[in-house]
Amino acid sequence: MDIIDNAAAEAAAEGFFRIALGVEYKGSRYHGWQRQRSGVLSVQQTLEEALSKVADSPVSLVCAGRTDAGVHGCGQVVHFDTQVVRSSKAWVMGANINLPHDISVAWSQEMPAHFHARFKATARRYRYVIYNDQIRPAHLGQEVTWNHRPLDVQRMAEAAAFLVGTHDFSAFRAGQCQAKSPIKEIHHLRVTRHGKMIVLDIRASAFLHHMVRNIAGVLMTIGAGERPVTWAREVLESRDRRSAGVTAHPYGLYLVQVEYPEEFALPERFIGPHFLTGFEALAADDWQVIC
Amino acid sequence: MDIIDNAAAEAAAEGFFRIALGVEYKGSRYHGWQRQRSGVLSVQQTLEEALSKVADSPVSLVCAGRTDAGVHGCGQVVHFDTQVVRSSKAWVMGANINLPHDISVAWSQEMPAHFHARFKATARRYRYVIYNDQIRPAHLGQEVTWNHRPLDVQRMAEAAAFLVGTHDFSAFRAGQCQAKSPIKEIHHLRVTRHGKMIVLDIRASAFLHHMVRNIAGVLMTIGAGERPVTWAREVLESRDRRSAGVTAHPYGLYLVQVEYPEEFALPERFIGPHFLTGFEALAADDWQVIC
Repeated sequence: MDIIDNAAAEAAAEGFFRIALGVEYKGSRYHGWQRQRSGVLSVQQTLEEALSKVADSPVSLVCAGRTDAGVHGCGQVVHFDTQVVRSSKAWVMGANINLPHDISVAWSQEMPAHFHARFKATARRYRYVIYNDQIRPAHLGQEVTWNHRPLDVQRMAEAAAFLVGTHDFSAFRAGQCQAKSPIKEIHHLRVTRHGKMIVLDIRASAFLHHMVRNIAGVLMTIGAGERPVTWAREVLESRDRRSAGVTAHPYGLYLVQVEYPEEFALPERFIGPHFLTGFEALAADDWQVIC
Repeated sequence: MDIIDNAAAEAAAEGFFRIALGVEYKGSRYHGWQRQRSGVLSVQQTLEEALSKVADSPVSLVCAGRTDAGVHGCGQVVHFDTQVVRSSKAWVMGANINLPHDISVAWSQEMPAHFHARFKATARRYRYVIYNDQIRPAHLGQEVTWNHRPLDVQRMAEAAAFLVGTHDFSAFRAGQCQAKSPIKEIHHLRVTRHGKMIVLDIRASAFLHHMVRNIAGVLMTIGAGERPVTWAREVLESRDRRSAGVTAHPYGLYLVQVEYPEEFALPERFIGPHFLTGFEALAADDWQVIC
């Protein structure tokens, strides 16, 4: 493939290879993606340690989206630079042998030096999975958000429509958010029910801190009938975080896809989490790629 | 309801109430259903302790199907006798408040004294959930069985057809099985694919020890193309456990339903595990009841 030949040529010139990886993880045991002070477990540190064994030298990772404690990754993309020569298969298999059960590397690809997992990303996509039943679920306790009130998906979808497009999302932004601007563009925000499960699927250029969880909180409140559908617009227009209520739990939140310009030709993979590939109604989704 | 009035009348005569419960649990942390020597965690003991707090007196449980270590329950049915008066809602909510995150009580119903969770059961149904992908899943690690070889569901379904009906299942029976007879009737054994997930759905009058996991092992071997479809019949006819290969992992195995004579009028509930209710193709199943 041209792009790999180019990357190899560039690597030879640069003195290093830039490698991109697709990463899955269950966030429950970790204090988020980002490496913390010693003694606090992070996905980044765990993955860096596994890759360092494969490389036989230290590896430092840059990720597309730093997820919070308890939040999961399916389509996380990371990159690192290395001087060692390994096949894509060796990076994937070597990492997976050295990783714990709740992190896995799905693919690896050599990239040109101007690729950057964070700065070249053009869109991110999250899914928020709600289990809607009176009874607390004994399964997937850390992988879905339980809501015991009957939720009206039609109302939630109508409310979601107010948020699609380019807006000032200050009302959905955490106090500690470091983004330069609160103005973001939501490309789509779909709400669908599948038996006992409700899936929010949201794609945007970029997200503010806690933005998806704050949106999920507002939509669940509307779905439960506690607020009118138009409350979503009121909250948005207030630009005031205090108007949006509590931040929804991280349990059901998955970073499912990061998009890059076509020139990088990254591998395509199904949109996770994996059990949602069995939701036939979601598979009809334009954005769903099964590979 | 008549049956409850009858039960109450009978309880007054007997001096106790017989209560049935529907129970869900994630088996991963437990050494199976059955109470063990002290210091070993079991679902039975954990649930008995929670119910004893609600009853303010000791509770001893009888279950429909004793599941092994790591095996999950969705539609487990249990009964116990008590002299205390509690509403159905009080049993459910009281138990759930006192239970850990991986066990929950879905419903409760007063029963006549001749009801028995184990001896009155007329059929049991299990589901075995396989995640079929090259990459180890970072999610649901203990709630699905990972198989990295591409499995041909059509071949698995053809092989399954040899096992349906009344047969001597000695070849699928664990050495420590205590059943009186190896002859059982499988009412249905369906194999369906839903994206990355494969679901075996099996209903029988009763099961031998490890029978579902041994069947799953044989079907996965055939699905991977390592053995011909007719191998399922050969194994069955051999009546020799050694011919069936290894017992499949417990991770993906769920006891999803126990059936009783209509006279008992037990509550109907969806067929779990809950994430499968989003598999629209399964919802078309005759046996699927969503409530």
